[in-house]
Amino acid sequence: MAAASARQVNIAIIGAGGVGKCFLSQLEQLAARRPSPKLVLTYICTSKKAIYSTDHVAIPIGTVSSALASSKQAPLALPKLVDFLGTSGSKTVLVDNTSSQDVADAYPLFLSRGISIVTPNKKAFSGSYKLWQDIFAAAEQSGAKVYHESSVGAGLPVLSTLKDLVDTGDEVTKIEGVFSGTMSFLFNSFAPTSGSGGKWSAEVKKAKELGYTEPDPRDDLNGLDVARKLTILARLAGLPVESPTAFPVQSLIPKELESVASGDEFLEKLPAFDAQMEETKAAAEKEGKVVRFVGSIDVATKQVKVGLEKFDLSHPIAALKGSDNIISFYTKRYGSNPLIVQGAGAGGDVTAMGVTSDLLKVLSQIA
Amino acid sequence: MAAASARQVNIAIIGAGGVGKCFLSQLEQLAARRPSPKLVLTYICTSKKAIYSTDHVAIPIGTVSSALASSKQAPLALPKLVDFLGTSGSKTVLVDNTSSQDVADAYPLFLSRGISIVTPNKKAFSGSYKLWQDIFAAAEQSGAKVYHESSVGAGLPVLSTLKDLVDTGDEVTKIEGVFSGTMSFLFNSFAPTSGSGGKWSAEVKKAKELGYTEPDPRDDLNGLDVARKLTILARLAGLPVESPTAFPVQSLIPKELESVASGDEFLEKLPAFDAQMEETKAAAEKEGKVVRFVGSIDVATKQVKVGLEKFDLSHPIAALKGSDNIISFYTKRYGSNPLIVQGAGAGGDVTAMGVTSDLLKVLSQIA
Repeated sequence: MAAASARQVNIAIIGAGGVGKCFLSQLEQLAARRPSPKLVLTYICTSKKAIYSTDHVAIPIGTVSSALASSKQAPLALPKLVDFLGTSGSKTVLVDNTSSQDVADAYPLFLSRGISIVTPNKKAFSGSYKLWQDIFAAAEQSGAKVYHESSVGAGLPVLSTLKDLVDTGDEVTKIEGVFSGTMSFLFNSFAPTSGSGGKWSAEVKKAKELGYTEPDPRDDLNGLDVARKLTILARLAGLPVESPTAFPVQSLIPKELESVASGDEFLEKLPAFDAQMEETKAAAEKEGKVVRFVGSIDVATKQVKVGLEKFDLSHPIAALKGSDNIISFYTKRYGSNPLIVQGAGAGGDVTAMGVTSDLLKVLSQIA
Repeated sequence: MAAASARQVNIAIIGAGGVGKCFLSQLEQLAARRPSPKLVLTYICTSKKAIYSTDHVAIPIGTVSSALASSKQAPLALPKLVDFLGTSGSKTVLVDNTSSQDVADAYPLFLSRGISIVTPNKKAFSGSYKLWQDIFAAAEQSGAKVYHESSVGAGLPVLSTLKDLVDTGDEVTKIEGVFSGTMSFLFNSFAPTSGSGGKWSAEVKKAKELGYTEPDPRDDLNGLDVARKLTILARLAGLPVESPTAFPVQSLIPKELESVASGDEFLEKLPAFDAQMEETKAAAEKEGKVVRFVGSIDVATKQVKVGLEKFDLSHPIAALKGSDNIISFYTKRYGSNPLIVQGAGAGGDVTAMGVTSDLLKVLSQIA
């Protein structure tokens, strides 16, 4: 066992994909910039490989990529990882840069052993309400911290702002916004505030080509990603939402294409359904409005919903650009003009930034 | 001396005006909601009166107003207050709800004695650069914390967002925005994006009647309030700005009215100068733009400036409503679309909210 040190914090990382790589780069800079507390990477794994040593020797952050590539070590099973981290003698933060439900399910175990967690993984906070309760109960009992800013809006200050509103006693009445970079891009192009925009299927194809959609665009168009984010926000606002399927979520996948075999086949057949979206767009235009894919939470009536809505051209949601997210908090203190946060809500660097700033918050409290 | 307790934090408050009253109400709710750490008010004063006891007995928060009214105690001189708080045996947070330069000047003394500070007072952070350095050096040395979110944009997450960007290694290239609720209201009414707006002097008069200006509107129109906020942001972004008068600040007070005796006389004589502002508005309109009073920081060229600028009607700064603030952070990670924070940037409740959330941040680290 390594010697305990009050001014050393061990870091364990699961996941070294897009966000994971950006986070490693930010962690390396951070460790170089801030001498105290000393940040020591003692474990990192992908789904297939790992680097660690039984005596918790520091892993040089700059060489992780190549070391992982040549590593012969397999990842530790999650309960074994909990034991490994829990016996290091140093305070430890687990950075979960995956979107794995399995890792999420193990959070209560990590937290109950005093291991803090920072993560962009939505699964833990938008899964069953029981898991949500178990996570925060375990943290409360052990004093370990858990932060997940990047689970909604990537690095944008969304969850921290909502927590500040709630914790200082404001009354949040409504939360509304565009929570998906993909949906933002699609509707800003399909139904722009000036000009006429392209055909729906063409915009989806373009978004996929630009890398703005999941490999199968249906994973964006089904609305589940937005529903997960709404679940997290609703729970932080005090609504015990059972799951992301416990409220109305409008899917933009035509019924007939729900079960086609592949994303490619879906894209091929989508043009046949353009008339439907064209009609929705025209109906909005007739009222001098544009259509957008939004999520909203009415706290008083406990209504959460995700789907298409029409907005005046002067509304901030209509005026959104590129693939930006926008989140409006309506509260008692802020009155009729909401507190608004806006900007890129996806991308490796800004997602990792949310994780890094969460790590800094944890360090300021445990180190 | 009261017995030391790890789970008790003493609170001392200077100032019980608009923001101070709102903060007291939020503190009372907070103390009732959160049993740990126990928050104990041991000192509160206005400019003329105080409540405290030599043995640091808890002051009931709910009765502070009436107790202050009937109090015969005078405020302690600041060095005496430092001694009083420093010898309580409990961790202590000073809440400075004034806009006093004297109190600000004493921050290094409080901090060096381990007393943390939360405040909306701009003076400490926008005064001389020496004071800024002394404050953070004292905090660094003693471990005491100092937070001042409400010194820019009231409760909006402006400073915390900038700090997160900087601390996680993003490169802030430019900060731009409307930083004064008064200026926002004036220009949103004088040069609206649709319709023609009123005469300048009439809008200033209306703003004063609605309570949106200082008693003498020249204290808003001289631009110094915005310059102070820009000074704070520039310093946090890494520019060692010497003072709020060290960069160009455009005053909207006609030269001829700078030295008239009173705000009332100023308002009376202002209509004679309407043509000037009318011309500025017309020049912007000719380009299809509107004029706004903004502050901007170009980090690369180290240029800070405050004054009138023209904006396209579709620009978020042009589309602002009411007396809202808007702050855009342009950074390397966020690329061409900035991270934007928008909402009410003045008012007792939202200013106090920034102070209360700062207090919660301090408590999470010291208690």
